[in-house]
Amino acid sequence: MSYTTNATIHTMGGTLLKLSHPSASTTTNMALSIFLPPQSSSSKVPLLIYLSGLTCSPDNCTDKGFLHRWASSHGLAVAYPDTSPRGLNLPGESDSWDFGVAASFYINATAEPFKGKYSMEDYVTKDLPDFLAREFGGKIDVANKSICGHSMGGHGALTLYLKNPGMYKSVSAWAPISNPTQCPWGQNAFKGYFGGDEEGWKKHDATELVKGWKGDLKCLVDVGTGDNFYKQGQLLPENLEAAAKETGLSGLTMRYQDGYDHSYYFISTFGEDHVKHAAKHLLSGPSL
Amino acid sequence: MSYTTNATIHTMGGTLLKLSHPSASTTTNMALSIFLPPQSSSSKVPLLIYLSGLTCSPDNCTDKGFLHRWASSHGLAVAYPDTSPRGLNLPGESDSWDFGVAASFYINATAEPFKGKYSMEDYVTKDLPDFLAREFGGKIDVANKSICGHSMGGHGALTLYLKNPGMYKSVSAWAPISNPTQCPWGQNAFKGYFGGDEEGWKKHDATELVKGWKGDLKCLVDVGTGDNFYKQGQLLPENLEAAAKETGLSGLTMRYQDGYDHSYYFISTFGEDHVKHAAKHLLSGPSL
Repeated sequence: MSYTTNATIHTMGGTLLKLSHPSASTTTNMALSIFLPPQSSSSKVPLLIYLSGLTCSPDNCTDKGFLHRWASSHGLAVAYPDTSPRGLNLPGESDSWDFGVAASFYINATAEPFKGKYSMEDYVTKDLPDFLAREFGGKIDVANKSICGHSMGGHGALTLYLKNPGMYKSVSAWAPISNPTQCPWGQNAFKGYFGGDEEGWKKHDATELVKGWKGDLKCLVDVGTGDNFYKQGQLLPENLEAAAKETGLSGLTMRYQDGYDHSYYFISTFGEDHVKHAAKHLLSGPSL
Repeated sequence: MSYTTNATIHTMGGTLLKLSHPSASTTTNMALSIFLPPQSSSSKVPLLIYLSGLTCSPDNCTDKGFLHRWASSHGLAVAYPDTSPRGLNLPGESDSWDFGVAASFYINATAEPFKGKYSMEDYVTKDLPDFLAREFGGKIDVANKSICGHSMGGHGALTLYLKNPGMYKSVSAWAPISNPTQCPWGQNAFKGYFGGDEEGWKKHDATELVKGWKGDLKCLVDVGTGDNFYKQGQLLPENLEAAAKETGLSGLTMRYQDGYDHSYYFISTFGEDHVKHAAKHLLSGPSL
């Protein structure tokens, strides 16, 4: 067995597994939680990958996101990767809450000392699906997958979707960092992970990437108008919306939710819609 | 204003308030969370009181119970009292996790040093509804209420319901301590709060109290068969079931849920049914 099972929990008619497994991309063991819906005991089910935000581990959303209720209804597996490698003890990786540990930004770092270790883009797009296909291939149809995420994880979901046409059937995000090259969180992270080539940063910015997209976006975004990080200009969803509009793209549903904040109370409230959005694109069937 | 608002959170179409307010019964400020469903902005809504288990504060269930999704659908307010007074600094109240702070057992203690302070039965049945009627009477129809709870809070819900016919329209419990005079948790707590009169303890034991009930029980109970506390004999739901049966009572739905544990993953899975159970008895309307 190439992984360790730390917990097996019955919930919402299915099973939540809290695992860890080795990753070549990060050179570490990676925490990973997987929800298997009841349908997976009789047939392969599609996959929804959820990318968490700054400071989170897989536990935050498995405990407080309430996605399993809807994943169980629609018959989707959900995978919760961690937000960075852990335990590397690299210089500077634990000095602040918005950079380093639990703050990978889901890119492949090119600057030292993060290069070759903070390779979370490779982890999510290669190691994770390879692992799931190898160990859970009898239950999960890993080729049929969508991606979603919150805040930094919303940035991750949007950019990995836009960088890899065809890899995911749809994307959604709660309160995503939508234009990281233009906000303090993103600028700080990209400088640390990539160095000072600001032009190069654009390859990792959803608002820049969307300009190269062809076809329907299949993208749902919710942002709370009471979200302090939105108010502070860390999220900038209007920039993504404007770029998609200027590019003439259809399929971006951008919703501003009155008074909602940045918390899991916000995520759980709209989780039903996000899982349904993924299911619509993952499942061939009537009336979704 | 006779209370302090610590947080106002938009969730599930309604509003979650995290408050504290003074209680005469406990002589302390009591933490209290209240979910107001969207319906409460136009008419008074019924009330469901949720009593939490050992070690919990109101935050555990507001964060992880997912009752608001269903309370919002049915139009119920939910009140989350704390599990004990806090900050009294009584001798022995913080020495163990299953006695004293966060472990009141929802009784009125008669033994020193808890007498006159650990009066959580009075708090829940008097101070709490009085406070809600006074401060939220325009939104909540406090006379129309049900009660539910988890573990120690399941014991609290069952006993307060059975001690006060007519006070609550229905009751439900997840993994309740169903026969506390016969389990270590209950014996330890009752000895500390009441002293050694074991015969007197029976007035606070659901399995004893149910023998005096008249009419339909209107009671839903879920217990997970993978719950370690159930396996260890702390819950004893079979004793409650047998006592209700011997008394010839109808209206006890006792469900054993295969493989489920004692956690909020269990609570949230069956929360939909528990809120629906309360709504059925609180709302006059079709097809609930």
